[in-house]
Order: sequence, then C-alpha cells, then structure tokens
Amino acid sequence: MNAADGVRRERLSWRLDRMAEFGARPDGGVNRQIYSDADRAARGELNRWAADLGLELYTDPIANQFFRLVPEGADPRLPPVVTGSHLDSQPTGGRYDGVYGVVAGFEAVAALIESGAEPKRPIEIVAWSNEEGSRFAPGCMGSMCFAGARSVADLADITDRDGLRLQDELDKTLASHPQMHERGFGLPVRAYVELHIEQGPVLEKLGKPIGLVRGIQGCRWFNVTVEGEARHAGTTPLALRRDALRAAVGYIDELQQALEDPDDVIRFTVGRFDVSPNAPNTVAERVGFSIDLRHPDDAVLEAAAARIGAILSLERGGCRATCERIFDHAPVQFDPDLFAAIGDEGRALDLACETLMSGAFHDALFMADHCPTAMIFVPSQDGISHHPSEFTALSDLYDGARLLTRVLEKVAGP
Amino acid sequence: MNAADGVRRERLSWRLDRMAEFGARPDGGVNRQIYSDADRAARGELNRWAADLGLELYTDPIANQFFRLVPEGADPRLPPVVTGSHLDSQPTGGRYDGVYGVVAGFEAVAALIESGAEPKRPIEIVAWSNEEGSRFAPGCMGSMCFAGARSVADLADITDRDGLRLQDELDKTLASHPQMHERGFGLPVRAYVELHIEQGPVLEKLGKPIGLVRGIQGCRWFNVTVEGEARHAGTTPLALRRDALRAAVGYIDELQQALEDPDDVIRFTVGRFDVSPNAPNTVAERVGFSIDLRHPDDAVLEAAAARIGAILSLERGGCRATCERIFDHAPVQFDPDLFAAIGDEGRALDLACETLMSGAFHDALFMADHCPTAMIFVPSQDGISHHPSEFTALSDLYDGARLLTRVLEKVAGP
Repeated sequence: MNAADGVRRERLSWRLDRMAEFGARPDGGVNRQIYSDADRAARGELNRWAADLGLELYTDPIANQFFRLVPEGADPRLPPVVTGSHLDSQPTGGRYDGVYGVVAGFEAVAALIESGAEPKRPIEIVAWSNEEGSRFAPGCMGSMCFAGARSVADLADITDRDGLRLQDELDKTLASHPQMHERGFGLPVRAYVELHIEQGPVLEKLGKPIGLVRGIQGCRWFNVTVEGEARHAGTTPLALRRDALRAAVGYIDELQQALEDPDDVIRFTVGRFDVSPNAPNTVAERVGFSIDLRHPDDAVLEAAAARIGAILSLERGGCRATCERIFDHAPVQFDPDLFAAIGDEGRALDLACETLMSGAFHDALFMADHCPTAMIFVPSQDGISHHPSEFTALSDLYDGARLLTRVLEKVAGP
Repeated sequence: MNAADGVRRERLSWRLDRMAEFGARPDGGVNRQIYSDADRAARGELNRWAADLGLELYTDPIANQFFRLVPEGADPRLPPVVTGSHLDSQPTGGRYDGVYGVVAGFEAVAALIESGAEPKRPIEIVAWSNEEGSRFAPGCMGSMCFAGARSVADLADITDRDGLRLQDELDKTLASHPQMHERGFGLPVRAYVELHIEQGPVLEKLGKPIGLVRGIQGCRWFNVTVEGEARHAGTTPLALRRDALRAAVGYIDELQQALEDPDDVIRFTVGRFDVSPNAPNTVAERVGFSIDLRHPDDAVLEAAAARIGAILSLERGGCRATCERIFDHAPVQFDPDLFAAIGDEGRALDLACETLMSGAFHDALFMADHCPTAMIFVPSQDGISHHPSEFTALSDLYDGARLLTRVLEKVAGP
C-alpha cells in the first residue's frame, strides 16, 4: 500500500474541526494565545492523539511539543525527520494558520503507520511554542530556542499586555502536561519539512494546489515609543502641547511615504498602536507602535531600516521617539536537495506545483539554520489569513497532507 | 468671627492628602475611575466627614452625593446654595482636579459651622458622578442627569473597555452606601458655585490667586470608527490592503491640517486610539478614535464640525469611516449677578482676581441651565492637569477655600 493513500479526508477534517474548538471565537475564527488555557487544552488534545498512535511524548524548556514515531525496524539513534508547525493564533485568527501543519503531521504519521511503511529513521511531529508572537513578542520563540538563536533566560521577563511574565505562564503550561518527557534544545535533525497555508493569493490565482517554497523573505520588527506630555485637551493651546499621538501620526505618515515602493514588494506595516492615557480629553503622553518590515533582499531591508532610523531620530512637535529593533532575520534560502525532493514527490502524485518565496515568516526560518529545511504551501482563499474568514478547501488540505506523507516516507526512508 | 477665617490650612491639606490615597498611583498621581472600588472608598470617606460635621446625606439615581447643612434658624424649605465638584479622575490624574472643589466645600462648611454664621438658606456640598467620562463616556453624567439633560436610562447600557455595563457598576456603588437618603433629580437650587483648579497657565503667568470665570467654551465629542480588513502583514501587497490604521492616520493628519487655527484658539484633540486586532504582523481591521473639539464661539464649532464630517465622509485607502457625535454643548455664560458677587467677595478679601473663560468643561456647564451658576479658579502650576504632576500651592488652595466660604455665606445669607 502507498502510504499517501492512507491519508483520510474525513479524519483530517475532523482533526481540524476539533482543534478549532480550543479558543473558538463566536465568528468562527480562533483566538488561541500562547500559554493560555485554550492553548493548554489544545496541547492536551495532541497528547491524546499521540498516545492513540503509540507515539512517544517529549517537551523542552520553552514547551515545544514533540511526538515521536520509531517505526518497526528503524534505528532510534539516527536523527529524526521532523514535521509540524504551531498551535498559537492571532487574536483574530483563523482555523488553518499553523495548526494545519501539525494536524497534517498527525495524519501523515497515522497513514505511515497504517501502510506498514518501514523507514529507517524516526519521524517526529512538532508543535512549536509561540510562532505568532501576538501575546509575547517576538514570534517563533519555540524554534528560535530549539535552534539556539535565543535562550529562555533571554525571554523570561517579557510581559504580556496584562503584565503577566512569560516564564510564569510557560511554567504553568509545562506543569499542566506532566506525562511528557523532558529533553533539551538543539537535538540533531535529519530534515525539517513544514506544511502551511500560503497566507497569500498566488496559488489560488494560478489554480495550483501546491507551493514549493524556495525560502522566506527577510523581516525586521521595531518597537517605537513616542514621548510627549499629558495635558488637558480643553485648556492647552496647540503651541504649548507635546502631543505624542499627533507626533506618532506624523511619524507614521512620513515613514509610509519614505518606504513607498513602486513595485509593491516592500512590506511595511504598523499593526499595533497603544496610547497612554488613551482618554478623549487628555493630550497623549505616550504612544507605542510596532513596525513590521519585510523584503526578499537584505540590502533593501538594510536601507529601509536606515531610513526608518533617520526619520525617527528627528523630534516632532516637541516629542522624541525611540526605536528598538526587537526582531531581525535575513532572507533565507531553503535546502536545495530537500526542495527538489519535495518537487519530485509532488510530480509523482501528479499535483500541479508552483515555486514561491514565503512572505510570512515561519518556524522553518530558524530551523533552516539548524538542519536541511523546506516548506510546502497549500492555497489560501482570497489570500486571507490572520482573520476568522481564513479558508482552504478540504481537497487542497488533503493534497498537502498526501504530499507531506510521501516526503516523510522518502526522507526518512531506507 | 469672620467665617472665612475659620478655614484651616492644615485641615484642608490633610483632607486633600487623605482623598489622594483612594486610587493612588505609584508616581504620586491618582487613578480614581467612576464606580470603581477606589471611588467607592473615597465616597465612604466623604460620608464619614459629613457625619462628623452633622450633615444630612443624600444620593440620587446616578449616585451623586449631597451633604446638606441646615444652619441654626435657616428655613429648610428654601432652595439650597450648592457647591462642590467631582471625585473621579483621569487614568493618569492628579490630586486636585475635581476633588479640590469637594474638599474645599467641606472646609467652607466646617468654617461656617464653627463661626456660628446664621445664613437663612440650607447649604449643600455635592460630589457629582463621572465628570471625566474616562471610564464611561461622555463626562458630566451626574450634573447632566441632575439638570435633566440626560436620563439614567439613556446611559445605562454604556460599557467600559472591559465590557462592564454602567448600570451594573452604578448599582454596586449605590448599594455600597445604604446610609444615604435617596432623592430625585432636578431639585430647585438657589445658586451653584464650583471651585476648581484652572488646568491652564493664565493665573500663574499673571501671578493672581483667583480666577473669576465668565463662562465655559463650547465642546463637542465624536467617536470615529474606521473599517478595514485584517490581512497578513508579510504576504499582502499594499495594493491589496484595506489598512484601517493607515487610513486612520491619514484622516487624523488631514483633520489636523483642516482645523489649524492661526490664533490657536480652536482646541482639536485625538486622545483615544484603539486598534483591532492590534498585533504587529496583522494589518489593522478596525480603528476607533476620539475627537475632542472646543471653541468659545458656537458658529466656529459648527463650521469645524462640518469640516470634520466632510473629511470623514470620503473613503481612504479602501476604508470607510463613521463618525458619531456623542457629546455637544454650546458655549455658556455664567450668571452675571453671581459672577459679580464673587468678585465683590474677592476684593473684600483683598485677593487679586482675573476674569477668565474656562477651557475645560465642568459640571457647572450643566448646572448653568438649572440655576444661577458661577465658578472660581485657583492657579495650576505650569498649567498642567490630567497628570500626576498637577500642582497648586497650599496658599492658593487656602485662598480659594476662604473666598468660597464668604461666597456661600453671602449667597445663603440673610
């Protein structure tokens, strides 16, 4: 029996529906913040699935979850082939971003077990902690720690909007699943393959079910703080104000103009904007806003970052800005052999494939520094992601899971 | 004995220190939101002070507090002279805004009692509910309801940022002080005199301790909502975005330019700006922001409001804005006789007085529709208000309370 034929549409669909119950929003979307009750419940469900499949359960100091299959006759000392993605979502998230890669990993492993395939390497499904970074910034903490790019001690004191500390919330999560075996970061990995929705419009427009991902564009995150003075809105003439909100609006306007790109390739986004005291009749004392900057070419990113720094270094309306770079990753090219192998398996399944660069970053960005890494995309309807209306057709989800199954069998194989 | 001589600096200072403990911020300021635990505790302290002075305690359906003195030989059937202000503060509030007028009322009444003054009318101290409007907008709810400008039923379903309903929080507050007698809104009042810090720089600049307030400039509040679409910040080209934050920044920039006033008399403030989902890597789906607009001339306000409406009626970057007027009050002129009487008493105390227009609105704005009304200002250091560094020297606070005592004695007098 061909292992890919063991993938079951209904079971795949059921698994996705089940996961969408954890952190379900009334509008059909998902809000599953890292280390929240909903996240812990979702982790518990994966543990049950893994136990049903007879997998070994591991976790590490950032609470990444690993579910390990040692196939009949395989050598447990060989570095495993790893697949997976993440469970955490945006506050207004959809049902597919991240969780699809984990669910498809379970479906592929189930299919491999049922087919009696006998690859010689262990296979692991991973659910990385905190890819989104929406509760505790920055994102991709789980894969960063695993690959050695950050330490948990570095991250421990980061707080969420309610002032809760990352280490405390992480400890609660670790304590809630005592049946998982603990292990360290950085274990050798034969290959990492991540299956994910595209989160962009390309595959749908081309009518192709599979994206072969060459790499990921570079990304930098900045936190900008603008300091003014709280004043009474009714009594203070404009000339005597140092209005942090007025200054922030001016900075953002100027940044947007400076980073305009006629080819529309640069991604410049201000998505977070927090005002203190945020009262209608008080001139703002402080504004914090985020900048998310991306481009496939590192030189372009560097020049854009320099312009951002120059604009924010100038006072505006008596207010000063400070700009902290909190995340920085150069563009990444995935492993050419693994990329080619995925293409071969796609053709063997007669699936139409398109080569893409990823606009979003993923845990694969950090795993690419650790081991041969590649990604597979499936289409996103209307390119929508980070939104309850995020949707991928079951036939595309099914094709992605079948391709993943073949790739795992191949790369772990004899 | 002259009643004004009964005002005690130390007791006035102690009362202000005591009130600043309720909702105290670590930076020395005050965050005392309406109907909060801190607010209820502060109300309880006033009730104790009133009981110590032998005053009658009344409340009404919006939880305004009234402390009533019926002097020896006075006619309890006559409409009272009322003085006071409010206890609630901005989130980053100071120790004087509002609470000074209430505290000075207690000091004046204590001085009147001790002096054996025998005015023929009752005197009441009032602490109005929710002048600031920072938890439940709009402000001045207590005086609005008292004067018949709004009903509690109108306001009951307003929610705070945590989704708590005004009526529920109000009910909790009413239930927490069962010893207060209930009475209705709109009782006849002989005169209302409100003592307040200036919250602006004029008196300090002129070196004068007393402001005689002619009236209050007009004020309008708007809530603006900008609707876009949540999209992934890394994958969505600018051309395919409907970015509510980008649009909101553009609207605010255009509004600021359109309302520029060479004489710097118009007050235009955006103090609140809330983004959804407010995540660094998601294009904003929705932004809500406030507009606070003020001017002494109603025709100017009307023209400015029309420009605001015109600017917000145009789509921006694929986003639509809606603009709701949530508060509107024309400029008010205070009662000329009461204004003149306050000036006379100020001169009798040999205090240098300056005539002013109030830039801030106050409960006096609504009381002016109900009864003869006027206000007294004392200086604000550097014009600072709505901030922990808000400060007025004790000598000025003392002079204000002495003047208030004389005015109450005079207006309630034989």
